This record gives sequence, C-alpha cells and structure tokens, in this order.
Amino acid sequence: MVKDLNNIREDFPILNEIVNDEPLVYLDNAATTQKPRQVVQALENYYYHDNANVHRGVHTLAERATEHFEAAREKVRAFINAASTKEVLFTRGATTGLNWIAASYGEKVIQAGDEIVISYMEHHSNLVPWQQLALRKGATLKYIKLTDQGTLDMADAKQQITSKTKIVAIAQAANVMGVINPVKELAKLAHAQGAIMVVDGAQSVPNIKVDVQDLDCDFLAFSGHKMLGPTGIGVLYAKEALLLEMPPIEFGGEMIDFVNLFDSSWTDLPWKFEAGTPDISGAIALGAAVDYLNEIGMDQIQAHSHEIVSYVLPKLQAIDGLTIYGPQDPAEHTGVIAFNLDGLHPHDLATGLDMEGVAVRAGHHCAQPLMKYLGIPAAARASFYFYNTKADADRLVNAVLATKEFFKDGTI
Amino acid sequence: MVKDLNNIREDFPILNEIVNDEPLVYLDNAATTQKPRQVVQALENYYYHDNANVHRGVHTLAERATEHFEAAREKVRAFINAASTKEVLFTRGATTGLNWIAASYGEKVIQAGDEIVISYMEHHSNLVPWQQLALRKGATLKYIKLTDQGTLDMADAKQQITSKTKIVAIAQAANVMGVINPVKELAKLAHAQGAIMVVDGAQSVPNIKVDVQDLDCDFLAFSGHKMLGPTGIGVLYAKEALLLEMPPIEFGGEMIDFVNLFDSSWTDLPWKFEAGTPDISGAIALGAAVDYLNEIGMDQIQAHSHEIVSYVLPKLQAIDGLTIYGPQDPAEHTGVIAFNLDGLHPHDLATGLDMEGVAVRAGHHCAQPLMKYLGIPAAARASFYFYNTKADADRLVNAVLATKEFFKDGTI
Repeated sequence: MVKDLNNIREDFPILNEIVNDEPLVYLDNAATTQKPRQVVQALENYYYHDNANVHRGVHTLAERATEHFEAAREKVRAFINAASTKEVLFTRGATTGLNWIAASYGEKVIQAGDEIVISYMEHHSNLVPWQQLALRKGATLKYIKLTDQGTLDMADAKQQITSKTKIVAIAQAANVMGVINPVKELAKLAHAQGAIMVVDGAQSVPNIKVDVQDLDCDFLAFSGHKMLGPTGIGVLYAKEALLLEMPPIEFGGEMIDFVNLFDSSWTDLPWKFEAGTPDISGAIALGAAVDYLNEIGMDQIQAHSHEIVSYVLPKLQAIDGLTIYGPQDPAEHTGVIAFNLDGLHPHDLATGLDMEGVAVRAGHHCAQPLMKYLGIPAAARASFYFYNTKADADRLVNAVLATKEFFKDGTI
Repeated sequence: MVKDLNNIREDFPILNEIVNDEPLVYLDNAATTQKPRQVVQALENYYYHDNANVHRGVHTLAERATEHFEAAREKVRAFINAASTKEVLFTRGATTGLNWIAASYGEKVIQAGDEIVISYMEHHSNLVPWQQLALRKGATLKYIKLTDQGTLDMADAKQQITSKTKIVAIAQAANVMGVINPVKELAKLAHAQGAIMVVDGAQSVPNIKVDVQDLDCDFLAFSGHKMLGPTGIGVLYAKEALLLEMPPIEFGGEMIDFVNLFDSSWTDLPWKFEAGTPDISGAIALGAAVDYLNEIGMDQIQAHSHEIVSYVLPKLQAIDGLTIYGPQDPAEHTGVIAFNLDGLHPHDLATGLDMEGVAVRAGHHCAQPLMKYLGIPAAARASFYFYNTKADADRLVNAVLATKEFFKDGTI
C-alpha cells in the first residue's frame, strides 16, 4: 500500500522540535535527512533481539544477524536494480565509495597522460579524490563547463571526453544548484571512448528512481543518511566484472580466503571489499529506510518535490534582492534551492532563518570550485524532502522576508 | 556512583532472548558485545531530537549535533587518556584504523629492506595490512614467536626488533588465546630502535584500563561494537606529531581547507582524516558506551573477568578430552577461552552448545597463521563479558558435557 504523504509526519518525531520558540521547519535535507520511527526501531529491534557478529558464527544470533544483514543488501540491490548482490558493497558513505574507486580502480588503471573528466559543479567528495589521483599519476583532470542556467554544458562534455579519457565522474543530482545531470548520456559518451562512468548518487538516489542497469554506469556511490538511513552506512555499486579485477582497499577479517604468513588470497564478492566487522545495524536500518521509501514510492517523492518547488520558487524569485543560483524553471529543479540576499552574508541569512525556526545551510556546500565559478564566496541553501509541506515553504518565504527586514540597515 | 554488576542485566534486553527453547547465554563477546539500553537510547535521542549534519551548519540542530559529536570525541579521549582530541580519529572500526596506518604512515615511511614486526597470534586485521604493505614495498614481515603457554616470547621479540625495524604491530589482548601482551615493554623496544609501536586494542580497550600516554604507543586502533557501542564506529588514536606528517587517506568534504581546481590543502586535526559526513550517531552512541563503562569501572570489569575465568577454567580443564589453548593459569587469561573437544569438529561443538542456548564462536577466528602455528584447523571460543554470570559459566560447562555425550559415538 502506498503511504499518503499527508499522514507521514507523525513518523518523524524530530519534526515536532521547537527551535527558538518556533516549530522546526527542517530544510537541510541535502545535508542529511531525518529518520522515520521505522528506521530507528530497526536499530532497536536489532540490538534488543538479534545482535551478533555476522558470517562466521554458527550460533543462532549470528545466523539471524547474518540473515538480516544480507537481506538488507538484497533490498538495496533491488532498489537500484543492480544485477546481483555481488555488485552491492556496504561502505561508510558516498565519500568512502568514491575514494575506494579512486584508490582501487583508479590506482590500477590511470597512467601519466590519461584524462579524468569531472564538472565544475561537483561536490568535493567527487572532486578531490580524482584531483589527488591525477596528481599522484601525472594524469590530467578536466572540468566540463556549465551553461548560464547552471546545467551541464553537454556540448562541452562532448569536447572534454576524448580517447585519452579513462574516467568520467559526475553527480547525477547537483548538491547546490539542484539540477539533474544526464548521466545515462554521459555514460554513452564515456563508453564510446573506452572510459568508465562513475556516478555520484548522493543527491539523486534519495530523490529519483535510479536504475543502474538502465543508466549503464560502472559505479554508483551514495549515502544512507541522505535517504532516511543512519549515519555511517553507504553503498558502492560497481559492475561485477570491474570488481573482479580490482584489488581490495582494506585488509582484515571477512575479506580473505586464505592467509599465509607472507601472502593471502581474497574471498568472493561482495565480501572481498568488506574487511572487518561491517556496520551491521547500519545496513539493516538502511534496509528499513529502503522499505519506507518503497512504501511511498520514488514517483510520489519526485512529484512532491516538483510540486513544492513549483510552489516556492516563484515566491522566492519575487523577493527583491534575492538571487537564485541554477535554473529559474522549477521543472529543472530538484528540491534543492541555493540563494543569496543582496548585502547580507549567507551565514547571517541562515542565522536569521534559524531565529524563525527554519533550518537551512549556508557556506560553500563542499563545492569551492563551483563557488569560484559562480563568483560568490558562499550561498544559503534550502533543500526540501517529501515530509516538507507547502506550509514549510511559506515559513521559509516569510522567514526570508523577516530576515531581510531585520537586516535592512545592513549586516550588524 | 559505581554500578553493581548484580543489577545490570536488565540494561541488556537481548539477554532475555530464548534460543532453542533455552534462555540465551551469550559467550561471543570477543566477536561483538551486546548493547545496554543507554546506548540504544542515545541513538534514539539523537535521531528524535538532534539529528543534523555536523560542523558546517549554522542552524540550531546542526550546532546541537556538532556539540554532541565532539563531546563524544572528548569522552573517548579521556577514556584512553590521549593528550588531545586532535589525536582521536573516528573510523569504521579497528580494521579501518589499522589499514589507515598502513596506507598513510606505512606507505610514506616503509622502503625496500625495512622490517615490520608482528606476532603469530595477530588477528588478520593486524596482519594482512602489514603483509600487503611489505609485499608492495619489498619490505620484510617478521613474526615474534609464542611460548609453549601461548604468550608472546619476549626473548624472541628482542631478537626480531632490530635497527631495520620501522613498525612493530601487536595486539594488546589476543582474540584466541586470551593473553595480555606487554605492549608498553614492546613500545620501549621499538622506540629504542627508532621504530613506531602500533597497538591493536580491539580486544583490550573493552576489557582493561588502557592509557595511551602510559603505554607510550604511537597508534592504538579499536572498535566501538566490542565495547558496548554500535557497529560501524571505531577509533584510531595516534600521536599528534605523526598525524601532522601523515597524508590523509580519504578525500572529500570536511577534511579540506581550500580546494582549487588542481590542488587542495587540508584542514586541522582531527578532521583532516575524517572525509565526508562522519558516523555522527555512532560516535554519540559510542560516547554513551564509554559513559556506561565508566559507571561500572574498568577495574571492576577486569576483576569480574578474572573471577569468572578462575571459576570456569578449572571446570573446563576437568572435562576429559577437552583441550584449552593458551595459558592454563586463569591469572594469565582475559575472558577469552579457546578450546576443542577430542574427535569433534569445533563447528559441531558450537552447534551443540547452541542447541543448549549457549552462543560461542567456532572457526579460525580470523587468525589462520595462529591456527597453523598451533597445528589445528579451528577451535571453539567462549568469551565472557561483565554481564555474564557464574550461572552462565555453569551453563557452558554443562552444555559442553551434553554435547560430548550427544556426539559420543562420533560426529554425525
């Protein structure tokens, strides 16, 4: 049964918090989402009834824990339509997944003179690992330009991706300007040149239906905590053929087949990449988050995001002195809206909103090259999720107006 | 106020589980410990009242989350008596911590011909990273022998640690034979030769008072889930001077100072090593676990372990055909006891115990070189923690006797 979005706020106890004497309006979902009771209860159920270490135990709790842990992997596999659970690695988050690709595949494949192609809108997590890999190897890092609307310049992409390209790494959804990038098309461009396609799914997997087989991407990294799951757990999807050729990144228990004194061999996928005790409760709770997202349906989540942005974007655009970065058309936006108010530092703007109970982020959003590209030091960012309402959007607009009024004689 | 061990079982709901129609006796604590309500409630409180991403947010929840997260780091610092929170890095667990040392310090320092010294009793997590580092660098991996009692042969240690040694890496408490190794003395031997001392604290930090300044170790890695904390969180302690010289292992948000298109600089300790969103809830819950351990007191935990092992070891020794590995003297044992029963595969033994509701582990315990050293393929292992009682010990002994009786005509 599909959950009705009008009846889900009670699943999120934190939405009842009072902040600065006002009911909380949480609009920092691109940084991390809130968690429904079902996810927290999955943690509690695991620790109160099933907790044991996985895979190597023959006792009942160890078997139960292993069963729940691997069932969570299967839930994630189905959610992104991977061909096999062998292709679903549990990581600490999107950042760790992207670093693993650079440290294992990148370290093995990239040579001096090779090219790695990213874009000016990448989050540091999908930028610094490639930059440092290029520095280590004497490879060239290339940046795809953006259009005036803040979307990826696909004409430039076709120029940047050449026969020298070995890796193309792009976010499917941008964390500042809220655009969706055509990663399926980019994967075709990459593959046509013999390069692989890495997708940073941190902002897309929580918000739109992602099908790795349809995208034909080679890697997809995302974080549990941005999709209702707990902190500390994430997923790296990779095509099995690539994982088979890649050396493991961490060594230890669980990932070995045989350990001799002076050499070792590795066990099967996916465990070859999961050294040590995994985040068992984190994976199980991520499985509960996937269940919850499925009950709502990614179609409904995407439709809600479109509805709320269509509602709020014109109201923000109507505020004199407020600049919105990225597309001005709601149809091209995810639930992420970055903006600045003339004459006001974004930190002061965010602080002003917080005084009204409205939580937004301000800063460079882990995208310093994008800030330089846009010619701004920082921006405020409101990011909506499916539990946000039009009333929340109104609270944002009114809080921006109140903050503007408060600072009208200049920043204090 | 110090908690009375007679009144703490109600804090652990899982101890009321029924397994195969018998009340659970959980003796797999060296694999992972159970969690008190206080730890699970810390997760719940965080997600229901404070959840936000840390460090970069100016809104109220972000400030609360950051405060709780960094307070947890301070709790860990005090628990191991590190000089500064700059020396306390949150990791995914002991395995990740040990791998980080090898990947950062080891990769930078080790050269062909250098020597790395470990022992025959190391867990794979403190063996395979060094073995693979030695293979990559053309360095030599050396193993300290064990005495007939299963303790570290310190005379051999003095032979193995030479002027060529760059790293000595030893578990402070052994995960199979339950011995405590004199890592303070080993650190002196290492430092006298200009080498650094790495301590695998996965089995010691939960069980004995560990003071990194007293030990004068250079690194100490341990896991939260083996000390009442959740899975997915661990700690790497390192001396500040070493961390300052070490390159970061993962790149992304939070760990940078400035990101330019083609180079970057890193932020201050400890965050330089914590790329991306950390396991915020895991760290906070680990802080709650540390609070709980402090309320009991590590002295009481160690005394209880000694009491229960003194009680159960003679009873096990009295069982005909049962071999105990490691010291036969309870005074030399932690709460870990590995054993085999003549004519019975340890998996059958563990399965037999599970039929009686007693959870122990069987296998190579991620210590294949030790198994070869002992000349056995595997062993069963019972590991006690402070919530285990003498009644639990009796249940173990009786279950071993029942299993022996069940299989008296040979393994089925």
